[in-house]
Amino acid sequence: MTKLRVHNLAVSIDGFATGEGQSLEAPFGHAGHRLMSWFFPTRAFVEMTGHESESVGAGTRGVDDAFAAATNLGIGAEIMGRNKFGPQRGPWQDESWQGWWGEEPPFHSPVVVLTHHPRPDFSLGETTFLFRDASPVEALAIAVEQAGGLDVRLGGGPTVVREFLAADLVDHLHIVVVPIVLGRGERVWDGLEGLEERFDVEVIASPTGVVHYVFTRRPR
Amino acid sequence: MTKLRVHNLAVSIDGFATGEGQSLEAPFGHAGHRLMSWFFPTRAFVEMTGHESESVGAGTRGVDDAFAAATNLGIGAEIMGRNKFGPQRGPWQDESWQGWWGEEPPFHSPVVVLTHHPRPDFSLGETTFLFRDASPVEALAIAVEQAGGLDVRLGGGPTVVREFLAADLVDHLHIVVVPIVLGRGERVWDGLEGLEERFDVEVIASPTGVVHYVFTRRPR
Repeated sequence: MTKLRVHNLAVSIDGFATGEGQSLEAPFGHAGHRLMSWFFPTRAFVEMTGHESESVGAGTRGVDDAFAAATNLGIGAEIMGRNKFGPQRGPWQDESWQGWWGEEPPFHSPVVVLTHHPRPDFSLGETTFLFRDASPVEALAIAVEQAGGLDVRLGGGPTVVREFLAADLVDHLHIVVVPIVLGRGERVWDGLEGLEERFDVEVIASPTGVVHYVFTRRPR
Repeated sequence: MTKLRVHNLAVSIDGFATGEGQSLEAPFGHAGHRLMSWFFPTRAFVEMTGHESESVGAGTRGVDDAFAAATNLGIGAEIMGRNKFGPQRGPWQDESWQGWWGEEPPFHSPVVVLTHHPRPDFSLGETTFLFRDASPVEALAIAVEQAGGLDVRLGGGPTVVREFLAADLVDHLHIVVVPIVLGRGERVWDGLEGLEERFDVEVIASPTGVVHYVFTRRPR
Protein backbone atom coordinates (compact mmCIF):
# COMPACT_ATOMS: atom_id res chain seq x y z
CA MET A 1 0.00 0.00 0.00
CA THR A 2 1.70 3.16 -1.23
CA LYS A 3 1.39 6.07 1.22
CA LEU A 4 1.47 9.75 0.39
CA ARG A 5 3.81 11.50 2.85
CA VAL A 6 4.64 15.11 3.66
CA HIS A 7 7.92 15.74 5.52
CA ASN A 8 9.53 18.79 7.10
CA LEU A 9 6.82 21.28 6.16
CA ALA A 10 7.92 24.26 8.26
CA VAL A 11 5.24 26.68 9.41
CA SER A 12 5.45 29.80 11.54
CA ILE A 13 3.39 29.91 14.73
CA ASP A 14 0.92 32.14 12.87
CA GLY A 15 0.50 29.56 10.12
CA PHE A 16 2.62 30.74 7.20
CA ALA A 17 4.78 28.22 5.34
CA THR A 18 6.49 30.81 3.22
CA GLY A 19 6.97 34.53 3.42
CA GLU A 20 5.83 37.30 1.13
CA GLY A 21 7.85 38.31 -1.93
CA GLN A 22 9.24 34.99 -3.18
CA SER A 23 11.86 35.36 -5.90
CA LEU A 24 14.93 33.72 -7.36
CA GLU A 25 17.05 35.40 -4.70
CA ALA A 26 14.57 34.77 -1.87
CA PRO A 27 12.82 31.39 -2.29
CA PHE A 28 11.04 31.84 1.07
CA GLY A 29 10.36 35.56 0.58
CA HIS A 30 10.79 37.77 3.64
CA ALA A 31 10.97 34.64 5.83
CA GLY A 32 14.54 34.14 4.62
CA HIS A 33 16.06 30.98 6.13
CA ARG A 34 14.20 31.33 9.41
CA LEU A 35 11.68 28.56 8.71
CA MET A 36 14.44 26.04 7.96
CA SER A 37 17.15 27.00 10.43
CA TRP A 38 16.27 23.95 12.57
CA PHE A 39 17.04 21.74 9.54
CA PHE A 40 20.45 22.96 8.40
CA PRO A 41 22.47 21.78 11.44
CA THR A 42 21.14 18.20 11.23
CA ARG A 43 23.38 15.33 10.20
CA ALA A 44 20.81 14.38 7.55
CA PHE A 45 21.08 17.78 5.87
CA VAL A 46 24.86 17.88 6.14
CA GLU A 47 25.11 14.43 4.50
CA MET A 48 22.58 15.35 1.81
CA THR A 49 24.44 18.46 0.76
CA GLY A 50 28.01 17.61 1.75
CA HIS A 51 28.06 21.02 3.41
CA GLU A 52 30.02 20.02 6.49
CA SER A 53 31.03 23.25 8.19
CA GLU A 54 32.99 24.37 11.20
CA SER A 55 29.85 25.50 13.00
CA VAL A 56 27.88 22.25 12.72
CA GLY A 57 30.62 19.69 12.12
CA ALA A 58 29.09 16.44 10.89
CA GLY A 59 25.70 17.59 12.13
CA THR A 60 23.42 17.08 15.11
CA ARG A 61 21.79 13.75 15.98
CA GLY A 62 18.85 14.92 18.07
CA VAL A 63 15.15 14.82 17.40
CA ASP A 64 15.33 17.33 14.55
CA ASP A 65 17.78 15.03 12.77
CA ALA A 66 15.63 11.99 13.45
CA PHE A 67 12.78 13.61 11.58
CA ALA A 68 15.01 15.00 8.83
CA ALA A 69 16.53 11.54 8.29
CA ALA A 70 13.10 10.00 7.67
CA THR A 71 12.47 12.23 4.67
CA ASN A 72 13.80 9.92 1.96
CA LEU A 73 13.26 6.51 3.54
CA GLY A 74 11.09 4.30 1.38
CA ILE A 75 10.28 7.06 -1.10
CA GLY A 76 10.00 6.14 -4.79
CA ALA A 77 8.69 9.39 -6.29
CA GLU A 78 7.86 12.98 -5.40
CA ILE A 79 5.05 15.36 -6.34
CA MET A 80 5.82 19.07 -6.18
CA GLY A 81 4.16 22.30 -7.17
CA ARG A 82 5.65 24.41 -9.89
CA ASN A 83 6.54 27.15 -7.41
CA LYS A 84 8.84 24.74 -5.61
CA PHE A 85 10.52 23.84 -8.89
CA GLY A 86 11.34 27.44 -9.70
CA PRO A 87 10.37 31.09 -9.60
CA GLN A 88 8.95 31.39 -13.15
CA ARG A 89 5.19 31.88 -13.52
CA GLY A 90 2.96 31.47 -16.59
CA PRO A 91 4.19 29.89 -19.85
CA TRP A 92 7.83 28.76 -19.66
CA GLN A 93 10.05 31.58 -20.93
CA ASP A 94 13.27 29.78 -20.21
CA GLU A 95 13.44 25.99 -20.40
CA SER A 96 17.13 26.09 -19.51
CA TRP A 97 15.99 26.49 -15.87
CA GLN A 98 16.32 23.00 -14.41
CA GLY A 99 15.44 23.67 -10.80
CA TRP A 100 17.29 25.02 -7.79
CA TRP A 101 19.39 21.96 -7.14
CA GLY A 102 22.36 21.91 -9.54
CA GLU A 103 23.61 18.91 -11.52
CA GLU A 104 22.61 16.26 -8.98
CA PRO A 105 19.21 17.08 -7.47
CA PRO A 106 18.62 15.43 -4.10
CA PHE A 107 15.53 13.46 -5.20
CA HIS A 108 17.15 10.48 -6.97
CA SER A 109 13.73 9.39 -8.20
CA PRO A 110 10.98 10.63 -10.53
CA VAL A 111 9.48 14.01 -9.62
CA VAL A 112 6.05 15.00 -10.91
CA VAL A 113 5.93 18.80 -11.27
CA LEU A 114 2.37 20.16 -11.32
CA THR A 115 1.95 22.92 -13.87
CA HIS A 116 -0.72 24.27 -16.18
CA HIS A 117 2.06 24.80 -18.74
CA PRO A 118 3.60 21.42 -19.63
CA ARG A 119 7.12 21.21 -21.05
CA PRO A 120 9.23 18.20 -22.05
CA ASP A 121 10.35 15.85 -19.29
CA PHE A 122 14.08 15.71 -18.64
CA SER A 123 16.56 13.87 -16.46
CA LEU A 124 19.28 15.40 -14.38
CA GLY A 125 21.61 13.10 -12.47
CA GLU A 126 19.42 10.37 -10.98
CA THR A 127 16.28 12.51 -11.03
CA THR A 128 13.66 12.69 -13.79
CA PHE A 129 11.27 15.65 -13.83
CA LEU A 130 7.84 15.06 -15.38
CA PHE A 131 5.72 18.16 -16.02
CA ARG A 132 2.00 17.48 -15.81
CA ASP A 133 -1.23 19.49 -15.80
CA ALA A 134 -3.10 17.16 -13.44
CA SER A 135 -5.58 17.17 -10.54
CA PRO A 136 -4.35 15.87 -7.18
CA VAL A 137 -5.95 12.47 -7.81
CA GLU A 138 -4.41 12.22 -11.29
CA ALA A 139 -1.00 13.39 -10.08
CA LEU A 140 -1.02 10.81 -7.31
CA ALA A 141 -1.85 8.06 -9.80
CA ILE A 142 1.08 9.11 -12.01
CA ALA A 143 3.46 9.26 -9.04
CA VAL A 144 2.32 5.91 -7.65
CA GLU A 145 3.06 4.32 -11.02
CA GLN A 146 6.52 5.90 -10.99
CA ALA A 147 7.24 4.90 -7.38
CA GLY A 148 7.56 1.17 -8.04
CA GLY A 149 5.75 0.07 -4.90
CA LEU A 150 7.46 2.58 -2.61
CA ASP A 151 5.81 5.63 -1.02
CA VAL A 152 5.25 9.00 -2.67
CA ARG A 153 6.47 12.21 -1.05
CA LEU A 154 4.42 15.37 -1.45
CA GLY A 155 7.16 17.97 -1.53
CA GLY A 156 5.16 21.20 -1.36
CA GLY A 157 4.84 24.11 -1.52
CA PRO A 158 2.08 24.98 0.89
CA THR A 159 -0.64 25.48 -1.73
CA VAL A 160 -0.07 22.01 -3.12
CA VAL A 161 -0.07 20.42 0.34
CA ARG A 162 -3.31 22.22 1.15
CA GLU A 163 -4.96 20.98 -2.05
CA PHE A 164 -3.98 17.37 -1.38
CA LEU A 165 -5.13 17.62 2.25
CA ALA A 166 -8.46 19.07 1.12
CA ALA A 167 -8.81 16.13 -1.27
CA ASP A 168 -8.01 13.79 1.66
CA LEU A 169 -5.12 12.11 -0.16
CA VAL A 170 -2.40 12.56 2.50
CA ASP A 171 -1.53 9.64 4.80
CA HIS A 172 1.39 11.14 6.77
CA LEU A 173 1.85 14.83 7.51
CA HIS A 174 4.95 16.03 9.34
CA ILE A 175 4.70 19.71 10.23
CA VAL A 176 7.42 21.67 11.99
CA VAL A 177 6.13 24.73 13.82
CA VAL A 178 8.79 27.42 14.21
CA PRO A 179 8.27 29.95 17.05
CA ILE A 180 8.30 33.07 14.90
CA VAL A 181 5.46 35.37 13.85
CA LEU A 182 5.85 35.86 10.09
CA GLY A 183 2.81 38.08 9.69
CA ARG A 184 2.39 37.57 5.95
CA GLY A 185 2.98 35.03 3.23
CA GLU A 186 1.21 31.83 2.32
CA ARG A 187 -1.03 30.19 4.91
CA VAL A 188 -1.02 26.41 5.29
CA TRP A 189 -4.22 25.80 7.24
CA ASP A 190 -6.77 27.83 5.28
CA GLY A 191 -9.79 25.81 4.21
CA LEU A 192 -8.84 22.81 6.35
CA GLU A 193 -11.22 23.31 9.29
CA GLY A 194 -11.66 20.09 11.24
CA LEU A 195 -8.58 18.42 9.70
CA GLU A 196 -7.74 16.86 13.08
CA GLU A 197 -10.85 14.66 12.91
CA ARG A 198 -9.24 12.58 10.16
CA PHE A 199 -5.83 12.21 11.82
CA ASP A 200 -4.12 10.98 14.96
CA VAL A 201 -1.66 13.58 16.18
CA GLU A 202 1.65 13.18 18.00
CA VAL A 203 3.51 16.25 19.23
CA ILE A 204 7.22 16.51 20.06
CA ALA A 205 8.95 19.71 21.20
CA SER A 206 12.60 19.96 20.23
CA PRO A 207 15.17 21.70 22.45
CA THR A 208 15.83 23.91 19.42
CA GLY A 209 12.41 25.50 19.95
CA VAL A 210 10.57 23.97 17.02
CA VAL A 211 7.67 21.57 17.53
CA HIS A 212 7.23 18.48 15.38
CA TYR A 213 3.63 17.51 14.65
CA VAL A 214 3.05 14.06 13.21
CA PHE A 215 -0.42 13.64 11.73
CA THR A 216 -1.25 10.05 10.80
CA ARG A 217 -4.36 9.42 8.72
CA ARG A 218 -6.83 7.23 10.59
CA PRO A 219 -7.91 4.01 8.86
CA ARG A 220 -10.70 4.76 6.45
CA MET B 1 8.59 45.56 39.66
CA THR B 2 5.05 44.65 38.69
CA LYS B 3 4.86 42.36 35.67
CA LEU B 4 2.03 42.05 33.20
CA ARG B 5 1.29 38.35 32.64
CA VAL B 6 -0.88 36.37 30.24
CA HIS B 7 -1.75 32.80 31.24
CA ASN B 8 -3.48 29.90 29.51
CA LEU B 9 -4.30 31.71 26.28
CA ALA B 10 -5.41 28.76 24.16
CA VAL B 11 -4.94 29.02 20.42
CA SER B 12 -5.70 26.58 17.62
CA ILE B 13 -2.82 25.47 15.40
CA ASP B 14 -4.15 27.86 12.76
CA GLY B 15 -4.00 30.79 15.18
CA PHE B 16 -7.55 31.34 16.42
CA ALA B 17 -8.16 31.98 20.12
CA THR B 18 -11.90 31.87 19.85
CA GLY B 19 -14.35 30.55 17.30
CA GLU B 20 -16.92 32.31 15.18
CA GLY B 21 -20.38 33.10 16.53
CA GLN B 22 -19.76 33.94 20.19
CA SER B 23 -22.92 34.21 22.28
CA LEU B 24 -24.26 33.76 25.77
CA GLU B 25 -24.72 30.07 25.04
CA ALA B 26 -21.40 29.67 23.23
CA PRO B 27 -18.69 31.86 24.78
CA PHE B 28 -16.06 30.38 22.43
CA GLY B 29 -18.37 30.29 19.39
CA HIS B 30 -18.11 27.23 17.17
CA ALA B 31 -14.91 26.24 18.99
CA GLY B 32 -17.05 25.01 21.87
CA HIS B 33 -14.89 23.67 24.71
CA ARG B 34 -12.22 22.31 22.41
CA LEU B 35 -9.67 25.06 23.12
CA MET B 36 -9.89 24.48 26.89
CA SER B 37 -10.32 20.71 27.11
CA TRP B 38 -6.68 20.39 28.26
CA PHE B 39 -7.51 22.67 31.22
CA PHE B 40 -10.63 21.11 32.70
CA PRO B 41 -9.02 17.86 33.96
CA THR B 42 -6.26 19.67 35.87
CA ARG B 43 -6.16 19.71 39.65
CA ALA B 44 -5.93 23.52 39.54
CA PHE B 45 -9.21 23.80 37.64
CA VAL B 46 -10.96 21.21 39.79
CA GLU B 47 -9.91 23.08 42.95
CA MET B 48 -10.89 26.45 41.49
CA THR B 49 -14.38 25.33 40.59
CA GLY B 50 -15.00 22.57 43.12
CA HIS B 51 -16.15 20.48 40.16
CA GLU B 52 -14.60 17.19 41.24
CA SER B 53 -16.08 14.55 38.99
CA GLU B 54 -15.91 10.84 38.50
CA SER B 55 -13.98 11.17 35.25
CA VAL B 56 -11.16 13.38 36.54
CA GLY B 57 -11.26 12.72 40.29
CA ALA B 58 -9.21 15.35 42.10
CA GLY B 59 -7.52 16.30 38.84
CA THR B 60 -4.29 15.63 37.00
CA ARG B 61 -0.88 16.78 38.23
CA GLY B 62 1.09 16.79 35.00
CA VAL B 63 2.54 19.65 33.00
CA ASP B 64 -0.87 21.07 32.06
CA ASP B 65 -1.69 21.38 35.76
CA ALA B 66 1.69 22.94 36.52
CA PHE B 67 0.90 25.73 34.10
CA ALA B 68 -2.72 26.07 35.18
CA ALA B 69 -1.63 26.33 38.82
CA ALA B 70 0.64 29.29 38.07
CA THR B 71 -2.29 31.40 36.85
CA ASN B 72 -3.12 33.11 40.13
CA LEU B 73 0.23 33.08 41.90
CA GLY B 74 1.36 36.57 42.83
CA ILE B 75 -1.48 38.27 40.98
CA GLY B 76 -3.02 41.40 42.52
CA ALA B 77 -5.33 42.58 39.73
CA GLU B 78 -6.64 41.59 36.30
CA ILE B 79 -7.33 43.48 33.10
CA MET B 80 -9.92 42.02 30.76
CA GLY B 81 -11.76 43.08 27.65
CA ARG B 82 -15.47 43.64 27.75
CA ASN B 83 -16.11 40.61 25.55
CA LYS B 84 -14.61 38.38 28.22
CA PHE B 85 -16.87 39.98 30.84
CA GLY B 86 -20.00 39.24 28.89
CA PRO B 87 -21.78 38.90 25.56
CA GLN B 88 -23.44 42.38 25.48
CA ARG B 89 -22.13 44.91 22.95
CA GLY B 90 -22.67 48.69 22.75
CA PRO B 91 -24.25 50.71 25.58
CA TRP B 92 -25.21 48.54 28.58
CA GLN B 93 -28.83 47.43 28.19
CA ASP B 94 -28.81 45.30 31.28
CA GLU B 95 -26.64 46.19 34.26
CA SER B 96 -27.94 43.20 36.18
CA TRP B 97 -25.44 41.12 34.17
CA GLN B 98 -22.51 40.65 36.54
CA GLY B 99 -20.31 38.37 34.49
CA TRP B 100 -20.24 34.65 33.76
CA TRP B 101 -18.94 33.56 37.12
CA GLY B 102 -21.80 33.51 39.64
CA GLU B 103 -21.73 34.89 43.18
CA GLU B 104 -18.04 34.24 43.84
CA PRO B 105 -15.99 35.06 40.74
CA PRO B 106 -12.60 33.32 40.66
CA PHE B 107 -10.53 36.52 40.56
CA HIS B 108 -10.54 37.52 44.26
CA SER B 109 -8.95 40.83 43.33
CA PRO B 110 -9.80 43.99 41.39
CA VAL B 111 -10.64 43.47 37.71
CA VAL B 112 -10.36 46.35 35.25
CA VAL B 113 -12.91 45.80 32.44
CA LEU B 114 -12.06 47.75 29.28
CA THR B 115 -15.15 49.30 27.70
CA HIS B 116 -16.10 52.37 25.72
CA HIS B 117 -19.34 52.39 27.74
CA PRO B 118 -18.52 52.88 31.44
CA ARG B 119 -20.95 51.78 34.13
CA PRO B 120 -20.71 51.88 37.93
CA ASP B 121 -18.10 49.69 39.58
CA PHE B 122 -19.41 46.89 41.77
CA SER B 123 -18.14 44.16 44.04
CA LEU B 124 -19.18 40.55 43.97
CA GLY B 125 -17.70 38.19 46.57
CA GLU B 126 -14.01 39.08 46.84
CA THR B 127 -13.86 40.60 43.35
CA THR B 128 -14.38 44.26 42.40
CA PHE B 129 -15.10 45.10 38.77
CA LEU B 130 -13.98 48.53 37.55
CA PHE B 131 -15.28 49.61 34.13
CA ARG B 132 -12.92 51.95 32.31
CA ASP B 133 -12.62 53.51 28.86
CA ALA B 134 -8.81 53.45 28.78
CA SER B 135 -5.86 52.87 26.47
CA PRO B 136 -3.60 49.89 27.22
CA VAL B 137 -1.07 52.16 28.97
CA GLU B 138 -3.78 53.84 31.06
CA ALA B 139 -5.43 50.53 31.92
CA LEU B 140 -2.12 49.09 33.04
CA ALA B 141 -1.50 52.10 35.31
CA ILE B 142 -4.92 51.66 36.92
CA ALA B 143 -4.39 47.93 37.42
CA VAL B 144 -0.88 48.39 38.82
CA GLU B 145 -2.28 50.81 41.40
CA GLN B 146 -4.93 48.24 42.32
CA ALA B 147 -2.48 45.34 42.49
CA GLY B 148 -0.69 46.49 45.63
CA GLY B 149 2.78 45.55 44.49
CA LEU B 150 1.78 42.21 43.01
CA ASP B 151 1.63 41.35 39.29
CA VAL B 152 -1.21 42.12 36.91
CA ARG B 153 -2.82 39.42 34.81
CA LEU B 154 -4.05 40.25 31.33
CA GLY B 155 -7.07 37.99 31.11
CA GLY B 156 -8.04 38.35 27.44
CA GLY B 157 -9.80 38.02 25.12
CA PRO B 158 -7.54 37.74 22.12
CA THR B 159 -8.11 41.28 20.82
CA VAL B 160 -7.05 42.77 24.13
CA VAL B 161 -3.95 40.57 24.35
CA ARG B 162 -3.01 41.55 20.81
CA GLU B 163 -3.37 45.26 21.63
CA PHE B 164 -1.18 45.00 24.73
CA LEU B 165 1.42 42.97 22.83
CA ALA B 166 1.46 45.55 20.03
CA ALA B 167 2.03 48.24 22.67
CA ASP B 168 4.88 46.11 24.09
CA LEU B 169 3.42 46.03 27.60
CA VAL B 170 3.43 42.25 28.17
CA ASP B 171 6.24 40.67 30.23
CA HIS B 172 5.08 37.05 30.35
CA LEU B 173 2.99 35.33 27.68
CA HIS B 174 1.83 31.75 28.17
CA ILE B 175 0.19 30.39 25.02
CA VAL B 176 -1.28 26.91 24.73
CA VAL B 177 -1.47 25.63 21.16
CA VAL B 178 -4.21 23.05 20.68
CA PRO B 179 -3.81 20.69 17.70
CA ILE B 180 -7.09 21.53 15.99
CA VAL B 181 -7.79 23.55 12.85
CA LEU B 182 -10.58 25.98 13.78
CA GLY B 183 -10.72 27.67 10.39
CA ARG B 184 -12.50 30.84 11.57
CA GLY B 185 -12.83 33.08 14.57
CA GLU B 186 -10.52 35.63 16.13
CA ARG B 187 -6.83 35.48 15.24
CA VAL B 188 -4.23 36.07 17.95
CA TRP B 189 -1.10 36.77 15.90
CA ASP B 190 -2.33 39.36 13.40
CA GLY B 191 -0.24 42.52 13.37
CA LEU B 192 2.48 41.02 15.58
CA GLU B 193 5.11 40.23 12.93
CA GLY B 194 8.54 39.81 14.52
CA LEU B 195 7.14 39.40 18.05
CA GLU B 196 9.77 36.75 18.79
CA GLU B 197 12.56 39.34 18.57
CA ARG B 198 11.41 40.84 21.87
CA PHE B 199 10.98 37.56 23.76
CA ASP B 200 12.83 34.45 24.82
CA VAL B 201 10.76 31.37 24.05
CA GLU B 202 10.51 28.05 25.85
CA VAL B 203 8.43 25.24 24.36
CA ILE B 204 6.96 22.23 26.20
CA ALA B 205 4.81 19.56 24.56
CA SER B 206 2.28 17.92 26.86
CA PRO B 207 1.29 14.26 26.52
CA THR B 208 -2.27 15.58 26.12
CA GLY B 209 -1.29 16.97 22.70
CA VAL B 210 -1.20 20.66 23.54
CA VAL B 211 2.03 22.66 23.42
CA HIS B 212 2.88 25.25 26.05
CA TYR B 213 4.79 28.29 24.78
CA VAL B 214 6.35 30.53 27.40
CA PHE B 215 7.41 33.90 25.99
CA THR B 216 9.49 35.95 28.43
CA ARG B 217 10.14 39.58 27.57
CA ARG B 218 13.87 40.27 27.19
CA PRO B 219 15.34 42.96 29.41
CA ARG B 220 14.74 46.36 27.83
